[in-house]
Amino acid sequence: MREVVVPLAQRSYTIAIGEGLLDRRDLLAPIVAGRQVAIVSNVTVAPLYAARLRAALEPDADCVIEVALPDGEAHKHWGTLNAIFDALLEHRFDRSAILVALGGGVVGDMTGFAAAVYQRGIDFIQVPTTLLAQVDSSVGGKTGINHPLGKNMIGAFHQPRLVLADVGCLATLPERELSAGLAEVIKHGAIADAAYLDAVERALPALLARDPGALADTVARSCEIKAGVVGSDERESGLRAILNFGHTFGHAIEAGLGYGEWLHGEAVGAGMVMAADLSRRLGLLDAAAAGRLRDAIAAAGLPVRGPAWPADRYVELMSVDKKAERGTPRFVLLEGLGRACVRRAPDDAVRETLAACAPG
Amino acid sequence: MREVVVPLAQRSYTIAIGEGLLDRRDLLAPIVAGRQVAIVSNVTVAPLYAARLRAALEPDADCVIEVALPDGEAHKHWGTLNAIFDALLEHRFDRSAILVALGGGVVGDMTGFAAAVYQRGIDFIQVPTTLLAQVDSSVGGKTGINHPLGKNMIGAFHQPRLVLADVGCLATLPERELSAGLAEVIKHGAIADAAYLDAVERALPALLARDPGALADTVARSCEIKAGVVGSDERESGLRAILNFGHTFGHAIEAGLGYGEWLHGEAVGAGMVMAADLSRRLGLLDAAAAGRLRDAIAAAGLPVRGPAWPADRYVELMSVDKKAERGTPRFVLLEGLGRACVRRAPDDAVRETLAACAPG
Repeated sequence: MREVVVPLAQRSYTIAIGEGLLDRRDLLAPIVAGRQVAIVSNVTVAPLYAARLRAALEPDADCVIEVALPDGEAHKHWGTLNAIFDALLEHRFDRSAILVALGGGVVGDMTGFAAAVYQRGIDFIQVPTTLLAQVDSSVGGKTGINHPLGKNMIGAFHQPRLVLADVGCLATLPERELSAGLAEVIKHGAIADAAYLDAVERALPALLARDPGALADTVARSCEIKAGVVGSDERESGLRAILNFGHTFGHAIEAGLGYGEWLHGEAVGAGMVMAADLSRRLGLLDAAAAGRLRDAIAAAGLPVRGPAWPADRYVELMSVDKKAERGTPRFVLLEGLGRACVRRAPDDAVRETLAACAPG
Repeated sequence: MREVVVPLAQRSYTIAIGEGLLDRRDLLAPIVAGRQVAIVSNVTVAPLYAARLRAALEPDADCVIEVALPDGEAHKHWGTLNAIFDALLEHRFDRSAILVALGGGVVGDMTGFAAAVYQRGIDFIQVPTTLLAQVDSSVGGKTGINHPLGKNMIGAFHQPRLVLADVGCLATLPERELSAGLAEVIKHGAIADAAYLDAVERALPALLARDPGALADTVARSCEIKAGVVGSDERESGLRAILNFGHTFGHAIEAGLGYGEWLHGEAVGAGMVMAADLSRRLGLLDAAAAGRLRDAIAAAGLPVRGPAWPADRYVELMSVDKKAERGTPRFVLLEGLGRACVRRAPDDAVRETLAACAPG
């Protein structure tokens, strides 16, 4: 088992990474002993893993209830969140209760937000079951729900007490979702650690074959990188923005297609190719490096071109992205592999990138 | 103008107290300059004061919008909260936007919670227009909404950047609401400062006549007392519980009657009489002190008896109160005027108090 500590003073917590962690009563007991526990999952994941997790929790907890949400981003809204509150209140869960999020990013975001606001804040544990959730949403404390006018518009920063990243759960993950998780892995290398990007490129065949050792190494290093960034900027005032590499273009793709059409990681894959192309056009990145990143994204099974829309449509979609302050989009770009920066980019360069990477 | 600082490290803020503060552009400008501002109020208060506040904000803000919520506790739910989010998103308010809560406790709680979770947290300013809000909800950072299964069950701790307590606004406050605010004022004296309780008793005629100087003195001292308690226990893990003096009985009254039938302060008034009676029965408080507190509550225009229900009904209602951990109610009691403590009380003493103070 590997451990990564996310350093956030009194809110510091440990990410435990390995195979079979779902069953590790010894890891859970110190936190859940004597407490009311709610396992919050969805109708897809719960039948696969909830019984094992419950068996690990029940000997030490005061009681364990289960809440199964509908599956999918389309349900990441207040109505579904309220189903969690209903269950907690019906079972008279008090402020010392703890939630356990068992599932991917949507379950984690909603459960974390429910914990952030139930009785003004209770504890929660993340048990991420997708690669994306293990490398991305298990670090950083971002929780929330969507609003009809914007994704993740309602939420809170709320840190888990513990994350159990069981790479054994990735055995049942659909192939597209595995690739989508690799998009964030590649991103971590691209923005912060060229040597890690090398290692990921070499490990791609093993990762795609779901080799537990390769997966655990990768989840651990990705979490370390993200933890380093988040630890120095918990509330996303500066450095943390580099984690949005590929996301300005990616969010435009997701918003334009309708969320859920492409997976988030797929949109980020194509978005990173675009951001690297834009970096090259601005003289920040050489063509060989941009090409190498593109090849790694393709080898991970991800799209490298955006949907064929006119540039105007992309520009309009990007202008409403929430990272765009008052309509002027900023971009996370690369000044070499492993080194990210945040810049405003001239409109003509952005349009050249769109013409090259998403010819409409 | 008086100023009380609420000492919460990086989240410290100032409560400015006086007459005519609604118009004080100089107090608002340092915080709102260049920012998108939303005045959130209700349909009763907005026509009285929103135009003045807007005039003070507009010269320095980037823009000012207004959101008028329906009036009353019955609307303190997700649907109303979402009306705030709709307005913010329709006007493309970003993370640097700031909300200004103009109204009583319901407006303050909802606006503060909207600020706590909009884009994972933005700033807000409180402009409380009721005595209760000025002395109580403007200190402590408690925000939230109700759930059908419990009051204030969904919320967050989120501190304002500034509170403007304009005692001039109390001129238009209905008499019952003025008295309800005095319940919390008397509570502050009873739990923490016997000399202040003396002063409040003497000042009651001036307070009921809405003398601005007497009101400002009282709001300032009550805020100091509450700030002192909250500053040492921001997350309500211990000492802060003493602020619930009168609230275990009071919440039972509110829940049993249906929220809104009695004002919160009215229920707390009767609840404090009960808590003092219970303190006396447990040998903590002498009869003269309990009687004096009861007289002050009556003189403030508040009820001193609970509704005439059987004791069983009160006991059942108190068992679901959220301060009751796992069904065993704790009580905030007095060990003398000005000195509160938290104790579990024997069931027979509680029933004797109910028989005496709310004969059913």
